[in-house]
Amino acid sequence: MIMEKILECVPNYSEGRDAAKIEKILHPFRNTPGVTLLDHSSDASHNRTVVTAVGAPEALIEAVASSVGAAVELIDLTKHEGQHPRMGCVDVIPFIPVRGCTIEEADAAAKELAALVAKKYALPVYLYEHSATAEHRRNLENIRRGQFEGLPDKIKDPLWKPDFGPGSVHPTGGVTAIGARPPLIAFNINLDTGDLSVAEKIASRIRHSGGGLRYCKALGVMLEGRGVAQVSINMTDFGKTAVYTIFEMVKMEARRYGAGVLGSEVVGLIPMQAMLDCAAYYLQLEGFTPDQVLESRL
Amino acid sequence: MIMEKILECVPNYSEGRDAAKIEKILHPFRNTPGVTLLDHSSDASHNRTVVTAVGAPEALIEAVASSVGAAVELIDLTKHEGQHPRMGCVDVIPFIPVRGCTIEEADAAAKELAALVAKKYALPVYLYEHSATAEHRRNLENIRRGQFEGLPDKIKDPLWKPDFGPGSVHPTGGVTAIGARPPLIAFNINLDTGDLSVAEKIASRIRHSGGGLRYCKALGVMLEGRGVAQVSINMTDFGKTAVYTIFEMVKMEARRYGAGVLGSEVVGLIPMQAMLDCAAYYLQLEGFTPDQVLESRL
Repeated sequence: MIMEKILECVPNYSEGRDAAKIEKILHPFRNTPGVTLLDHSSDASHNRTVVTAVGAPEALIEAVASSVGAAVELIDLTKHEGQHPRMGCVDVIPFIPVRGCTIEEADAAAKELAALVAKKYALPVYLYEHSATAEHRRNLENIRRGQFEGLPDKIKDPLWKPDFGPGSVHPTGGVTAIGARPPLIAFNINLDTGDLSVAEKIASRIRHSGGGLRYCKALGVMLEGRGVAQVSINMTDFGKTAVYTIFEMVKMEARRYGAGVLGSEVVGLIPMQAMLDCAAYYLQLEGFTPDQVLESRL
Repeated sequence: MIMEKILECVPNYSEGRDAAKIEKILHPFRNTPGVTLLDHSSDASHNRTVVTAVGAPEALIEAVASSVGAAVELIDLTKHEGQHPRMGCVDVIPFIPVRGCTIEEADAAAKELAALVAKKYALPVYLYEHSATAEHRRNLENIRRGQFEGLPDKIKDPLWKPDFGPGSVHPTGGVTAIGARPPLIAFNINLDTGDLSVAEKIASRIRHSGGGLRYCKALGVMLEGRGVAQVSINMTDFGKTAVYTIFEMVKMEARRYGAGVLGSEVVGLIPMQAMLDCAAYYLQLEGFTPDQVLESRL
């Protein structure tokens, strides 16, 4: 019951159809001591499998490296087709700090894995997000633009020299992006109106691209079953743009339309700290630290 | 990283001066696999030691039983003096559900320990709090009234027949109270006034004894260093009387005095669920469950 360091890794593999191949890719996550396979989902039309695994940093790096080896062996990008854009047999490998870890420790794990797989499998690696070595490489979409087919030209441009590995694309495995990022939170706020345009206008004010909050992406959508307009939010760094900040800003913007908030929902998982930050804000807690949470002592 | 069942136990021993004896009492908590000694504090004037340990139910029962054996052997109540009221070498043993456990599982552990120590050490045991077998035995103060010296008479009253063990007091070890209770929360709210009477009047309205909330105890106190009046609160069942309910009720009562809330503080530990309940209330979360907290999956 000692507080272990736990990282999360969510690698994306360019194989979503062949169950036998997928099982070989999952094998290291099922069989490395200290690693837990939390979730995996394969999509045939995307032809892609997304794995969620957690574990102690060294064990997790070992499992991911081993699965990259399986993917290099089993996946041939020259024959890959699917709806999702992709540039490698393992398209992207984010590391996320989960417990007792900082983003810097996730970054160190990302770089250790990058060096390892670049050397072992002759796979070019771009560091992205928090681990990026240049601003134009931070965003995954920038790195992936042109996809597998466009990479042989792109990689020759000095701006796109890989951070690790050879200076040319792996003939069947392509390239991989590896990096650390904070946990994402999917958070939706339901309005007491059926007018989609109200949700759209609020979303456009609160999101970063519209002049709003730095780590907030937002869209207006309709919940058809309920006839309710919703502001659908993706939070990319809750430590800097908090859930309560977004919630209060949506209420503030809704006022000009005479609208209010019916309720909200967290989709999927949320880090405990994001919930503590909200409780502490609304209760005006002074000097509260997460180690006051009983469960953090277990 | 499987979700273990974890109980907490906070036994109180009537020895707070003899370091060698205290160490022998602590020994089982330091040396039973599956048990973690979180805290222990000994008070010489109270002549009492309070232990906080957590662990899987069976391991924790084993450690507590072994420490009770040490206490029966080492502590002679006929020679005990101290400021704190006491009735046994182990005065009281509360079991508290912490993770993956219900109050019923804490109750089962309390009863298992009660049967075990009653038989093994010929120690009479009263079940108290959630485990009490009659309403007049629920409150520890009722059981302890008369203390060690008054017990030989009290125990003959059929109303005070022990729940486990012999019908007469252990000659040197006295009697013990064992039972399950929810986690306690110590929560203080600071007012923007230096008028103690305002904090006292608010406390008297929000507490159970004054017609307020069922699981809330409260007092008005002065924070001398800051010149601030404080409502000092003990919460005895946060699942039924929530932190946010108390916080909002204090704000509501403060209004009639033109007073507001400066801030609040959690003293010591708080269960994660109590914080989640607050975040969920203020964010108006729909359908949120604690297993959406990332850390609960680890």
